[in-house]
Amino acid sequence: MQDQHAWSGRFSEPVSELVKKYTASVDFDKRLAEFDIEGSLAHATMLNKAGVLSDDDVAAIRRGMAEVLEDIRSGRFEWSVDLEDVHMNVERRLTDKIGDAGKRLHTGRSRNDQVATDIRLWLRAQIDAIVTLIAELQTSLLDLAEQHADTVMPGFTHLQVAQPVTFGHHMLAYVEMLGRDAERMTDCRKRVNRLPLGAAALAGTTFPIDRHYTAQLLGFDDVCHNSLDAVSDRDFAIEFTAAASLVMVHLSRLSEELILWMSPRVGFIDIADRFCTGSSIMPQKKNPDVPELVRGKSGRVVGHLIALVTLMKAQPLAYNKDNQEDKEPLFDTADTLIDTLRIYADMMRGVTVKPEAMRAAVLQGFATATDLADYLVKKGVPFRDSHEVVALAVRHAESQGVDLADLELETLRQFSPLIDEEVYAVLTPEGSLAQRDHVGGTAPSQVRAQIARHRARLAG
Amino acid sequence: MQDQHAWSGRFSEPVSELVKKYTASVDFDKRLAEFDIEGSLAHATMLNKAGVLSDDDVAAIRRGMAEVLEDIRSGRFEWSVDLEDVHMNVERRLTDKIGDAGKRLHTGRSRNDQVATDIRLWLRAQIDAIVTLIAELQTSLLDLAEQHADTVMPGFTHLQVAQPVTFGHHMLAYVEMLGRDAERMTDCRKRVNRLPLGAAALAGTTFPIDRHYTAQLLGFDDVCHNSLDAVSDRDFAIEFTAAASLVMVHLSRLSEELILWMSPRVGFIDIADRFCTGSSIMPQKKNPDVPELVRGKSGRVVGHLIALVTLMKAQPLAYNKDNQEDKEPLFDTADTLIDTLRIYADMMRGVTVKPEAMRAAVLQGFATATDLADYLVKKGVPFRDSHEVVALAVRHAESQGVDLADLELETLRQFSPLIDEEVYAVLTPEGSLAQRDHVGGTAPSQVRAQIARHRARLAG
Amino acid sequence: MQDQHAWSGRFSEPVSELVKKYTASVDFDKRLAEFDIEGSLAHATMLNKAGVLSDDDVAAIRRGMAEVLEDIRSGRFEWSVDLEDVHMNVERRLTDKIGDAGKRLHTGRSRNDQVATDIRLWLRAQIDAIVTLIAELQTSLLDLAEQHADTVMPGFTHLQVAQPVTFGHHMLAYVEMLGRDAERMTDCRKRVNRLPLGAAALAGTTFPIDRHYTAQLLGFDDVCHNSLDAVSDRDFAIEFTAAASLVMVHLSRLSEELILWMSPRVGFIDIADRFCTGSSIMPQKKNPDVPELVRGKSGRVVGHLIALVTLMKAQPLAYNKDNQEDKEPLFDTADTLIDTLRIYADMMRGVTVKPEAMRAAVLQGFATATDLADYLVKKGVPFRDSHEVVALAVRHAESQGVDLADLELETLRQFSPLIDEEVYAVLTPEGSLAQRDHVGGTAPSQVRAQIARHRARLAG
Amino acid sequence: MQDQHAWSGRFSEPVSELVKKYTASVDFDKRLAEFDIEGSLAHATMLNKAGVLSDDDVAAIRRGMAEVLEDIRSGRFEWSVDLEDVHMNVERRLTDKIGDAGKRLHTGRSRNDQVATDIRLWLRAQIDAIVTLIAELQTSLLDLAEQHADTVMPGFTHLQVAQPVTFGHHMLAYVEMLGRDAERMTDCRKRVNRLPLGAAALAGTTFPIDRHYTAQLLGFDDVCHNSLDAVSDRDFAIEFTAAASLVMVHLSRLSEELILWMSPRVGFIDIADRFCTGSSIMPQKKNPDVPELVRGKSGRVVGHLIALVTLMKAQPLAYNKDNQEDKEPLFDTADTLIDTLRIYADMMRGVTVKPEAMRAAVLQGFATATDLADYLVKKGVPFRDSHEVVALAVRHAESQGVDLADLELETLRQFSPLIDEEVYAVLTPEGSLAQRDHVGGTAPSQVRAQIARHRARLAG
Repeated sequence: MQDQHAWSGRFSEPVSELVKKYTASVDFDKRLAEFDIEGSLAHATMLNKAGVLSDDDVAAIRRGMAEVLEDIRSGRFEWSVDLEDVHMNVERRLTDKIGDAGKRLHTGRSRNDQVATDIRLWLRAQIDAIVTLIAELQTSLLDLAEQHADTVMPGFTHLQVAQPVTFGHHMLAYVEMLGRDAERMTDCRKRVNRLPLGAAALAGTTFPIDRHYTAQLLGFDDVCHNSLDAVSDRDFAIEFTAAASLVMVHLSRLSEELILWMSPRVGFIDIADRFCTGSSIMPQKKNPDVPELVRGKSGRVVGHLIALVTLMKAQPLAYNKDNQEDKEPLFDTADTLIDTLRIYADMMRGVTVKPEAMRAAVLQGFATATDLADYLVKKGVPFRDSHEVVALAVRHAESQGVDLADLELETLRQFSPLIDEEVYAVLTPEGSLAQRDHVGGTAPSQVRAQIARHRARLAG
Repeated sequence: MQDQHAWSGRFSEPVSELVKKYTASVDFDKRLAEFDIEGSLAHATMLNKAGVLSDDDVAAIRRGMAEVLEDIRSGRFEWSVDLEDVHMNVERRLTDKIGDAGKRLHTGRSRNDQVATDIRLWLRAQIDAIVTLIAELQTSLLDLAEQHADTVMPGFTHLQVAQPVTFGHHMLAYVEMLGRDAERMTDCRKRVNRLPLGAAALAGTTFPIDRHYTAQLLGFDDVCHNSLDAVSDRDFAIEFTAAASLVMVHLSRLSEELILWMSPRVGFIDIADRFCTGSSIMPQKKNPDVPELVRGKSGRVVGHLIALVTLMKAQPLAYNKDNQEDKEPLFDTADTLIDTLRIYADMMRGVTVKPEAMRAAVLQGFATATDLADYLVKKGVPFRDSHEVVALAVRHAESQGVDLADLELETLRQFSPLIDEEVYAVLTPEGSLAQRDHVGGTAPSQVRAQIARHRARLAG
Repeated sequence: MQDQHAWSGRFSEPVSELVKKYTASVDFDKRLAEFDIEGSLAHATMLNKAGVLSDDDVAAIRRGMAEVLEDIRSGRFEWSVDLEDVHMNVERRLTDKIGDAGKRLHTGRSRNDQVATDIRLWLRAQIDAIVTLIAELQTSLLDLAEQHADTVMPGFTHLQVAQPVTFGHHMLAYVEMLGRDAERMTDCRKRVNRLPLGAAALAGTTFPIDRHYTAQLLGFDDVCHNSLDAVSDRDFAIEFTAAASLVMVHLSRLSEELILWMSPRVGFIDIADRFCTGSSIMPQKKNPDVPELVRGKSGRVVGHLIALVTLMKAQPLAYNKDNQEDKEPLFDTADTLIDTLRIYADMMRGVTVKPEAMRAAVLQGFATATDLADYLVKKGVPFRDSHEVVALAVRHAESQGVDLADLELETLRQFSPLIDEEVYAVLTPEGSLAQRDHVGGTAPSQVRAQIARHRARLAG
Repeated sequence: MQDQHAWSGRFSEPVSELVKKYTASVDFDKRLAEFDIEGSLAHATMLNKAGVLSDDDVAAIRRGMAEVLEDIRSGRFEWSVDLEDVHMNVERRLTDKIGDAGKRLHTGRSRNDQVATDIRLWLRAQIDAIVTLIAELQTSLLDLAEQHADTVMPGFTHLQVAQPVTFGHHMLAYVEMLGRDAERMTDCRKRVNRLPLGAAALAGTTFPIDRHYTAQLLGFDDVCHNSLDAVSDRDFAIEFTAAASLVMVHLSRLSEELILWMSPRVGFIDIADRFCTGSSIMPQKKNPDVPELVRGKSGRVVGHLIALVTLMKAQPLAYNKDNQEDKEPLFDTADTLIDTLRIYADMMRGVTVKPEAMRAAVLQGFATATDLADYLVKKGVPFRDSHEVVALAVRHAESQGVDLADLELETLRQFSPLIDEEVYAVLTPEGSLAQRDHVGGTAPSQVRAQIARHRARLAG
């Protein structure tokens, strides 16, 4: 077999098969093909404007690339490991089709800046998809929140019942988290969307290129202002993966709660069958597989983050082959995130809430004790003292096996003579909720206001 | 000893000493004291405006807190592990000084939103310091770049000599990285600078608080819009630590290069003695300790990032005690970053460049081979063909032990008859540099233009 | 101030204060002092045997070191940052006390092999303590398992009720995990317990040292067989931290369960008050702080693991200053693990089990469905078919809101005519348990056998 | 399409395609097929011995499985995502072939213990391959070390020339590291090689199984002694990945050195062309791609370690779907490690050493300064004083631009009158080497002794 490596003129020894497989990237970087072609076409257009490529050459390149693209899309393209990577595969096929014009395309660039351009184009598209999917998941959550803006559930701290909240309020916590995720993705996009092309191997090129024109053709906001940095920078991959890790951490938290809420002892929700599976041995089981997998997949994405950070640690400038290892973690991070967000948005529409179980749980844990303390404060008792009074009242109620609201007024007054009849209004879950009526509080009116705010933002 | 816990009314058993030590945070969170007091004063002012605290109470709180602050600053404050954390220590001291008004301060808040507020105030201040220090380090690098805008050095890829660059251009690569770091810190600051106070334990409070007013008093851009999220969110800690990890990765790369450049076989630079140490056994050694430590400390910060991500993975809402573990990694990350940036800015001013060694290295590696290839392309040879021609010429020169520029014209013409006399102009390092004259290229004029751009930005 | 660095003869510039603080390790490595002295005494004894140090010198060193040790233990020792690290502090103090003999102690060694020796001596002691504490925690768990060898609880998969198990059986799962942890620690100890001393700076020494003798004096199993490796190896730190991470992962799982079981909706256990805290705002709360902190601290230890791996990645041989960063993660890992194990062993003795709540939960989830399937298999139905039969029976029972055991025989026989009266024996939790009577199964007799096996092993 | 899920009787809703793809594992777990069949055959044999399966059933299962295996090996097997995983695919095909006997195979087990068994069988085989490959790489290194047992090179600390060592000695450092790696793999294997089968879903089974017999059939050393632990334990995956991370860290260090040594300014070695690639733009380049990729792939494996630790953190018992995420990181870790070790063993045989460049480098850095210090100590000067003397001599030589050995005796005596003519013997690299003649020292005789020790061990 004829050795097809671009740089093979210099070598006397063939590359062994294992080394070829170990060093080639085409098996995974072929997914960049469309972005590679897009970048090449913009590069050719710019070279033409700069007088480096003739009109005929560019026309041939456009025609040839259209065919290559068609071959790829139709599955006819035969990827060759001997040609190492997506760039050489595409270029070789182009040259087979159009001859010398294809050989001239690589003028004024290098694979180092080419791959950096491809990956940024690809990542920009993923980020845009992710931001859209985050919004879709937020919409699912807002719909659920709206249905349950008044549904009482126990607010937990330390998995102990703390105070009543509404299920809508709880869902909004995740809408907030996802809102920050979208912000982070958008911030990251600014740094992704800069053009490395023109850095060539590492030092720029001797051809009279116009990088701002290429950037404009490809929709980049700016160019990378230093050629060494342009080819060696993988910050965007790390920043993206860190942002993705936070999305997954948020979804691991929601998954943990869904799993817990669907456990029969808790029984707060049910999840539609299509997101669950059964057991090969226990016929009665209905397992929340999707949330469990999502929780597990948070590890996967965090692992990719660490892989990328470790990759870059202590690498000298400029390009090193190490950087080829950036792709698989990055690809898998985007794939995992996109699949997870899609499924989650759908799954949250399949959540059935069981308000009666939630309400029963609220009544199990002295959830309105803080309301009693606040009540006393409003009567003039310093907070710390009122807190002590309520602690004793709770202790008494607990010893009797009843809720605070079940204690008789006379009993309550033994703890503080300031308590009178209207105390019972604040000791119900609904009374407790209604009083938390400020921005960010759990009062149903506030929950509805937040839903409206988010909907307006998403519509904008 | 009287049990001093805020919540002790309910318990029948004393807390053992080990448990006390294990669960208390005062040993490390006392550094938040000034921010805790700042937050408390704003809270008191807001409560007063809202009619919850009287003018007298607020005056007492202000007076008392001034004394507490003075005690802390002077080192007179005695921190008590029995009081668990900075919040209870400060409040207890305040109450000792001013009585009931102190007990009323905790109205309408909880330690859950209080600590979240403290840590955000603290982190905001650290980010501001870091952004300033990044600019200072960039200035050091720009000064060095300006001195060496024309200094030829080998540009490496794969640690092989690739093409000539200037040392100034190389330094600018790090100015770019640090520029992105500052952007990320600034983006992160937006999400740090939101007020959790008012979330109380998790659900908001029954008092008529005005959270926007508190936010304004404390310089926050916005409030957290969901109380459950406000007390359970630690995104900002993870995002900050991820951004800090990238700074450290960048500095690990520069450190790697400094260490390498100072190795006697390379000999490109020297570092001022005050950043180096010697050996207890080898009297001749001068070791680049600071860059080595920085390289090592990148691991420390990455470790903190993972600690925080692991901490938050799969935590159910709202507040859990796990979150107390956010502080030490966060504190150490900021401390490490601030110390490192300070030292680095100073150390880069102590770098002596050895241009003759750099120039000698350029001549060692056929660094202008690409220039010869480009020269042929401009004569009409397709790039891929010209690349093959040059490969053969290099192989020949290597076999003769000479540089391309040392080959006679006749010899060169054996590889391509298109080569003529003026080829020698592009085969010198200076000729090579001068031709890379586009945005981001290594031509000295472009290096100077980038320096000017950065200086203008830093001055702005 | 006179510059006191050991290697200062060569330098013309004073070290700035910040650099001094940044590069010094004495603030954290002083805890190695006793091990440093132990190592020095063995080294001196060996040098004396080898004829390098005189009897008088060694006697002086022993006397002087005894005083130094007494100074350290009594808190009189003044640690100096100018002297950088524990080694120079101890040696300088020794020399102040005994003169030239002190200066001769450092013959044939370097700080590179000295610190490696100190840290291995220290780590060996920590591992021994950890192995003991693991056994203590296992004993706590065995005691609890023994009390509850018959206590029925739901075995969960996917947090859904799967099959009945006993609480004793559940506790034994953690005894197994901890058993593997102890094995890993013991395996790690083998690789810790090798002597690096004698490697000197990196190449060995010109003095006629007897490394096996030093190893014997210090209780090492072997010597490190390559001097470059001896000073650059930090595998033991990574391996230890990885093993520690697994212990913490196990305890994070048990913590997760304790927190869940103590949540009022589940209500399976209570934890003694001394391991819990209350709320500053919600008087009724009793929070499982210790398990929550342990769960959080798993992140801390995993973070240290990553810090150490990142530290070592791509470090060239032999010693680099980066390695100084090994100590803080290692120290904190051992401290965290030791404190956590101590508290956990005590806390598990403070767990109160609520068998009636556990039994009620078993009856909530068709936990004996598999028993019905197995029953049919024993009647000749292929497993996959019997599984289908039971699935339909469960579906019917669920639609009626009853357990399988509540269905009438006639109803059951509609699903399979092979079912007859004795089926009800296998549909009770106790019947289900009793049948799982093989090694590792949950039958109470098997649980007791495992307890006996573990007790015998721990006693051995 | 008929729904083919094993547990589908219970559900009313079809599983959507995305959910199916998201939750299915067959795409990656099909590689376990041969181990799955091996486990099933042993299970069937045991069930037959226990009287649960008839002779005819077992014969049918054996015959059917042989056909299934042949289908898989020949590539005829059609894997179905609808059948979720390797287990159901294999079982369904078996049942298609042999009818009811195939349905009876799953008696007394569950997919939970089945997958745990498969993965342990698979991992055991990988570990055995890895231990063999480590030995092969050690042999390559020993061969190289033997050739260069006398080849002088600079020993570096802090990348500064410290003392002369031999290249053979340097290679032996890596033989030591790899030796520990093999030990760790072997220790890990003990914990991998325990049988989970028989745990069934989580509690054991009601059939009279003989787990020790199954263990014996499959070559397991022991059984897992607790059924809950058996199905939820993934320690072995984490321990293996941690051990693999250390191997990769070691190879990242060697790679770093190879890259550095091949850099033209250092020029210590060359690597055979077949492990290098060229540049698409710079015809003169020869890049050490394989070492760079290995260095980069260390990140990949460390990432998998973190993925697995994160996966297991805080998971409640027993089996959760999260655990399905254990496979891809584990598979990729073993694949990466095996490929890397194979290539490395071959590549080290392709390393050409350049002794003259190494020797020149030794003479550049006052590498024998310690020898001068030791010389003075042997004349009676306390080490710390002798160190000062040498520091001054080095400073003087450096100012003159000469080596210590180039200073005249008279000059040397200005620093210490104890110096006389024979000092020059210890100031040569060979003199320096020869004196480090103790276990682990760099004297050529010691290097040869270590080579012999390792060869004996590997032969054993």
